[in-house]
Amino acid sequence: MRAPAPASNIEMSALLDDLRAIVGAAHVLTGDGDALLAWERDWRKRFRGRSLCVVLPGSADEVAAVVRRCAREGGVTIVPQGGNTGLVGGGVPDESRRQVVLGTKRLRAVRRLDVDNQTITVEAGLALQEVQAAAADTGLLFPLSLASEGSCTIGGNLATNAGGTQVLRFGNARELCLGLEVVTAQGELWSSLHGLRKDNTGYDLRDLFVGSEGTLGIITAATLRLFPQPRAGVAAWATCRTLADAVALMRRLRADFDAELVGYEAMNAASLTLVERHFEALRAPLPLADAAGAPLWSVLVDLASPHDEAVLRERAEATLMAALEAAEAVDIALPASESQSRALWQLREAIPLAQGVEGLNIKHDVGVPLSALADFVAAADEAVEAIVPGARHITFGHLGDGNLHYNLQAPAGGDADEFLARHEQAVNACVHDVAGRFGGTFSAEHGIGRLKRAELALRKPAPALAMMKAIKAALDPHGLLNPGVLLPD
Amino acid sequence: MRAPAPASNIEMSALLDDLRAIVGAAHVLTGDGDALLAWERDWRKRFRGRSLCVVLPGSADEVAAVVRRCAREGGVTIVPQGGNTGLVGGGVPDESRRQVVLGTKRLRAVRRLDVDNQTITVEAGLALQEVQAAAADTGLLFPLSLASEGSCTIGGNLATNAGGTQVLRFGNARELCLGLEVVTAQGELWSSLHGLRKDNTGYDLRDLFVGSEGTLGIITAATLRLFPQPRAGVAAWATCRTLADAVALMRRLRADFDAELVGYEAMNAASLTLVERHFEALRAPLPLADAAGAPLWSVLVDLASPHDEAVLRERAEATLMAALEAAEAVDIALPASESQSRALWQLREAIPLAQGVEGLNIKHDVGVPLSALADFVAAADEAVEAIVPGARHITFGHLGDGNLHYNLQAPAGGDADEFLARHEQAVNACVHDVAGRFGGTFSAEHGIGRLKRAELALRKPAPALAMMKAIKAALDPHGLLNPGVLLPD
Repeated sequence: MRAPAPASNIEMSALLDDLRAIVGAAHVLTGDGDALLAWERDWRKRFRGRSLCVVLPGSADEVAAVVRRCAREGGVTIVPQGGNTGLVGGGVPDESRRQVVLGTKRLRAVRRLDVDNQTITVEAGLALQEVQAAAADTGLLFPLSLASEGSCTIGGNLATNAGGTQVLRFGNARELCLGLEVVTAQGELWSSLHGLRKDNTGYDLRDLFVGSEGTLGIITAATLRLFPQPRAGVAAWATCRTLADAVALMRRLRADFDAELVGYEAMNAASLTLVERHFEALRAPLPLADAAGAPLWSVLVDLASPHDEAVLRERAEATLMAALEAAEAVDIALPASESQSRALWQLREAIPLAQGVEGLNIKHDVGVPLSALADFVAAADEAVEAIVPGARHITFGHLGDGNLHYNLQAPAGGDADEFLARHEQAVNACVHDVAGRFGGTFSAEHGIGRLKRAELALRKPAPALAMMKAIKAALDPHGLLNPGVLLPD
Repeated sequence: MRAPAPASNIEMSALLDDLRAIVGAAHVLTGDGDALLAWERDWRKRFRGRSLCVVLPGSADEVAAVVRRCAREGGVTIVPQGGNTGLVGGGVPDESRRQVVLGTKRLRAVRRLDVDNQTITVEAGLALQEVQAAAADTGLLFPLSLASEGSCTIGGNLATNAGGTQVLRFGNARELCLGLEVVTAQGELWSSLHGLRKDNTGYDLRDLFVGSEGTLGIITAATLRLFPQPRAGVAAWATCRTLADAVALMRRLRADFDAELVGYEAMNAASLTLVERHFEALRAPLPLADAAGAPLWSVLVDLASPHDEAVLRERAEATLMAALEAAEAVDIALPASESQSRALWQLREAIPLAQGVEGLNIKHDVGVPLSALADFVAAADEAVEAIVPGARHITFGHLGDGNLHYNLQAPAGGDADEFLARHEQAVNACVHDVAGRFGGTFSAEHGIGRLKRAELALRKPAPALAMMKAIKAALDPHGLLNPGVLLPD
């Protein structure tokens, strides 16, 4: 990595002039104080940096020129930024004032929508929702779906290999990408925007850039897979006595519906109690505890099909009835209308919001094999209880992918600020240890960024870390791109 | 790359002794003449090398020890080999007698079949068919399917990112792999056999090894995705006036069946005429020409569903009838029995065999976007005709993936040996040029190996080649693994 070199204001001023010449003066932003706050701080407000400037190129060629110019300037590095909606601080600068934030938001073209090939080629700065809408306009589906889809960019989704609620059927951002246009650390433009489903000509550079969090290159455009818009959708709700039952129910659904099962979310009783407490309009459709008062798990089933909606609904009922008979489910509810279906999703999506209202909390993004999920939660619950007796377990997430947001709220009546400040590190370490014991990961979909670099250094196998560092040194030998993110020093 | 260094027989004998100590004397094979022919020649007989020896390790640790020992020996390199069924000579040694063929066929354990997680962890030397069978034993499906599945190994499938007939629904080998165990060029063992569907902790090393043809590491085991076994399957046959019609029909099928459409193969009339000529038992179910004598394209549709077979069949009929009405199809045939369905697949699979019987021929493995497929074939036909007037176009392949085996047979009555010898290079260059003009690839599923290195050097964009070389140098700085394969010198 290049050490930050002292640079005089005169030199910096020459750099700024050159950047203005490349992208236009209006697109190089500078300023003191909070003028650049929107670019210098992540939305969770955990990282607040100070940049040299914010540069907003209007084309891939301009991105390449900016990279080449910055590379010539000793001690200046580049932080690529999309919608700045990441959860791990991977898109904000450090405090050195020697980093250029390269925002992609002006790269907004839909370059091509190829209906026969079922692909769309878009520039990196388009919001995810805009990509979805462009596909929908021609009757096709771009299935990546996240809470932040209105403001996150497709470039950021790819750079962080975003997940979301339909990974079960469609995969992560990586699986949805057929080709990329990337500006390398040398300021060269490499394009594989061919829309080919099969291309076995050498190393998989595409998937190396996807998920590399801007440390290997800057994604400027992508060709994405599209799917037919499903003609029917059915959401269903069920409660289960145990998480193991919820896994068994999922297995039954997969056998009966295969790819028609597009999402499978699970929520513990405490997470829905929190939603009901803070959002009066939102009510779980089924009791959160059984007759004896034991808390139940709730699951949200999302089915989509090219066939008839009535048939899909009938089948969903049949499968869920069979699950009731097999005692995998305690109770089931099928919404009678589209708006009732939406309300079920609102319940699920309100959990993190309710957590915020309730107070500061400790979050995780663990993933374990589905077969270990129930044992993982039992072991983690026990381990956390030993650290913070009475901590409230707000456990929910993408069960279908083995991905749980295993979050913790201060014990009832406890001080949330103190809870976070005092216990976060120990609880994180404990939960990640337990996940690791079950073959799990400490970052299933959020990535590493600045937040989890130390965890990566600690938990990633040594040969993998060595290979990652070797690849970084090979592709970005001067450490120009996003230093301080992802890779340990 | 390490230059082959001269080594005395005495030194080689020390190496052989050490290798025998690692894997057992019975598993180090040496011999002159044709003793090692099965390992030294590819099955298409295009490459015939001479190895120092063949080593057959019995565990990943033994693989690692062999790698470390060979790395210490100046001028000795390693050629990983699975079932030796590749089409591009990527698994056979050169003629230097300084290469150790490392065969994976003794790595045969099914380490774990996790039904709840729908994953199987297998060692690299298991035949693809054995992996399929192990999954099927528990009611699950491993969908990778190739002509050579009885003898190719899963390690080789991953090292070459194999394709096959169900890529349309399930993806290439890459998409079916969740984790790997790899011996690195340093002889270290790296494992990511976790079975996680989401793990966003750093660069995508897995996908870098998949498809790297043994040049970056040696795959010793993998965790693979499984799917529910479909409960119903329906095959159908249709003829189309043009390739554009066949693409339109595919679009209709995708809209109506989505993921239930698992395969979509296309064959021109000449390819089926060849099959009928050489295999009396095989007859196309529909005429290969229309009433006016114009040749038709035939397509084989493969549908699979978790739902009822009668319903699937009824739907297939409805969609195909609609295609008839829309004039996308000229004629349709739905087999009345399982054996009739199998016969349709036999027709498709007999094409390369019929080509062999007919005589030496020129093969391609091109891929283009589906939207360009018809134009590509028209342009390639014209360009080839200009080189070899009267050459017979045997065009068939995985239309659903845009992947055509655009093959050529000598003009009727011509000398096949002379046709291949005289025209192969020019025709290859011409067809690959035309594919490139339509944004296509010269190797959709077969890979590069030794056969297509020059093509790669010529056709891969310079930034991609530079990155590939940098990655190779980073992970295998001494060029120990499979030199002469994939990467240009």
